[in-house]
Parts: sequence; C-alpha cells; structure tokens
Amino acid sequence: MARTAGSNGTRTLEAIRKAGLRLIYRQGYEAMSLRQLASEVGIQVGSLYNHISTKQDLLFDLIRVHMEELIARLDRALEGFDSPADRLDAFIRFHVEYHIARKREVFISYSELRSLEPKNYDVIVELRGRYERRLIDILDEGVAHEDFTTADTTVAAFGILAMLTGVCTWFKPGGRLSKDEVIEVYSGMIRDGLVRPGAGFTPDRLLPRPPAGAVPGA
Amino acid sequence: MARTAGSNGTRTLEAIRKAGLRLIYRQGYEAMSLRQLASEVGIQVGSLYNHISTKQDLLFDLIRVHMEELIARLDRALEGFDSPADRLDAFIRFHVEYHIARKREVFISYSELRSLEPKNYDVIVELRGRYERRLIDILDEGVAHEDFTTADTTVAAFGILAMLTGVCTWFKPGGRLSKDEVIEVYSGMIRDGLVRPGAGFTPDRLLPRPPAGAVPGA
Repeated sequence: MARTAGSNGTRTLEAIRKAGLRLIYRQGYEAMSLRQLASEVGIQVGSLYNHISTKQDLLFDLIRVHMEELIARLDRALEGFDSPADRLDAFIRFHVEYHIARKREVFISYSELRSLEPKNYDVIVELRGRYERRLIDILDEGVAHEDFTTADTTVAAFGILAMLTGVCTWFKPGGRLSKDEVIEVYSGMIRDGLVRPGAGFTPDRLLPRPPAGAVPGA
Repeated sequence: MARTAGSNGTRTLEAIRKAGLRLIYRQGYEAMSLRQLASEVGIQVGSLYNHISTKQDLLFDLIRVHMEELIARLDRALEGFDSPADRLDAFIRFHVEYHIARKREVFISYSELRSLEPKNYDVIVELRGRYERRLIDILDEGVAHEDFTTADTTVAAFGILAMLTGVCTWFKPGGRLSKDEVIEVYSGMIRDGLVRPGAGFTPDRLLPRPPAGAVPGA
C-alpha cells in the first residue's frame, strides 16, 4: 500500500497505521474520518494520500499485516518441535502470548471483518484459514501418530482457537494468574478436558481457588 | 427507557430497537446517526425522542435486555436438572442454541462495550459476571460433589464460554454438522479434553473427518 519511499515516508506511514489502529479500535472503522486520522497523525488530510490510497486500503493493510505476521511468527515458534504433542503445546503458548500482546489488532480483525470490501474480505478469510489449518494439521498428525484422539479435529481446532483468543478479553498482567499459569492451565484443559469426570483426582497443576466472584487476572 | 405508553408506542419502540440493532451490527455504534435510525424506521428524527432519550440509551437498552434475557432463559433451561453433570450439559446446550439464534446481539454486546458510558458499562459487566457465575457455580458444585475436577473453575468457565460463543462465528445451518452434533462434540470435548492423550481410542461420537480445508458448517 505504501506509495512513499525513504525513511521519512516510512515513519509517516507507520504513524498513520498506528493512529488508524487506535481510532478504529476506539470508535470503529465507519466512524473514523480521514480528517480525524490526519489530525491524529498531525498532518494535512491531503498529505494522507501520499501514504494511503483509501480508508479501506488502511483497514485491509492493518488486518492483512496482522494475519501475515501471525502466520510467519507461528512458523518460527513451531520450529524445532517435532512431536504433535510438543507442537500443540508450542502452538498454545504462541497463540496466547501473541494475542495478549496484540489486543487491538485482534479486536479489529474480528469486529471489522464486516467493513472489508468483498475482495479484501476473501484475502483475510484465506489467511485466517491458513492459520487455522496449521492447528488442524497438528491435530491430524497427532491422530495419525496415535498421540491423541479427538472427536473432530476441525471442531476441536476452532474450539481451541476461540478459547485461547478469549484469554485476551479477560487477562490482565499482574492479576491472580500469570501468563505462564494461564498457558499451563489451558494446555492441561485442552489435553485432559476442561471439566474432567472422576472423583478425588487432584492434578499437580491445581491452583488456589479464587474468592467467589473474582475474575482471573482482574 | 420507554417514554411511550400504549401498543402503537410499543410497536414503534420495537421497530426502533430492531433498526438500531441492525445498524449497529452493520456499521458500528459511533457511525450510526439518529437521522439514519429514524429513516430506517420510517419516522421523523424528532419522533425518535418520544421513544428513546439518547443514542446511548438505545445501545445500553439493547445490550442490557440481551443480558437479562440470557440470564432469565438460562435459569429456565437449567430447571429440573439436579446433578452438576446434567446442569453442565444443559448449560452447554442452552448457550450454543441461544448464541446461534442471537448472533447480532452477541456481536454488539462484545464489540460495543467500548461505546458504553461508564455507569452503563458497569451494569453490563455486573450482568455478565452474574451469567458467568452460574457456570462457575455448576463447576464448583461438581468439584464439591466429586463429580468432576478441574484445574481452576473460573478459568475453565471462561474457556467454556469462549469456546461455545465462538460457535456463532462459524456455524451455518445446513452445513457439515448439525447444531445437535456441534453441541454433542463440544460437550464431549469439555468433559474429556479437546485433544485426548492415548492411542487407539475411538469415541462413540467420532464423526466423519472433513475434507482438507473444509470449514465446519460452511
């Protein structure tokens, strides 16, 4: 999307992307005007067009770059893990850490899918499918190697993704559970069941119970 | 919020609520003008004020009524189920069915929390906490009765809610899996693990595997 060259142009484009992300996160894509975006960056509206073609172009760029980075970083995070069980653990850790660190990108990538023009929407859905496929492949491989079983690898993958992404909506640094504890609890629940039948079992990872009404991480 | 009395007023208010839900879902709260809302309903802008006080009032009402109905209907859905395991199954079925049926309310209740004024936000967070508490109580009771164990009932509850709510983003009626099959698969995964260690195990509920790249319900 960049029409500019040189480091000044790159810095301005980066400032536009950051301001756009902030504004879209705060008030939504439709409500953001280019006038407001320019004012947030501290440039004239006319100058915006040296860096972005349209508002749609900016939204698409924000979501596309987020998805492409997600996939590229996942691939790096999985490097060196061979067994499906280890790859699943690495996937869980990566997904939680990345999503906690990019709350705003995650939010707009979900809430503003509605605002993407059809051809842009299709690109994002394809990228999302590629990311989901990485997890489905890990589960399929685990089933093939008889490392684990699951009722349906695609539904399980969607369940795991929703559960882990949900962490960003309630996790707060400095809360009752650390990020590592959350990852450990979720890894255990994904393997052993969120709620496990069987009396009297005390898992190693049993954590102190929160007071009634407490919100984890709050 | 209703300032009107009588069935005409009630019908108009209902039309305003429906149009508001549609517009906020489509383009976001900030971008919806009262002029647009009135035009969607087919009344004058001035007449809106016979039914709603402010745009904020309408958003708050939409989310509050959604949350209150969610809680009231859950309580009815749990009636007659005594054991924690049965109550958990009833909760899962209710949550999936209600959320699939109310996609738009679910979406705005999440994406437009940012647009609520602080006092309204607090009311909604309290209602959400009350709903979450119902599930945490079922899990706590199950743990107390030694019907099941879980590493952390609050984290498990948040995981279950995120996973089940996620169904609304991908489930399509007439797709590969029926609503009942989705509910059955998720109930099983919540009890036994999304991905279960142990080779050679074939659960009764094993479903035909989808072709590569297939999206459930798509």
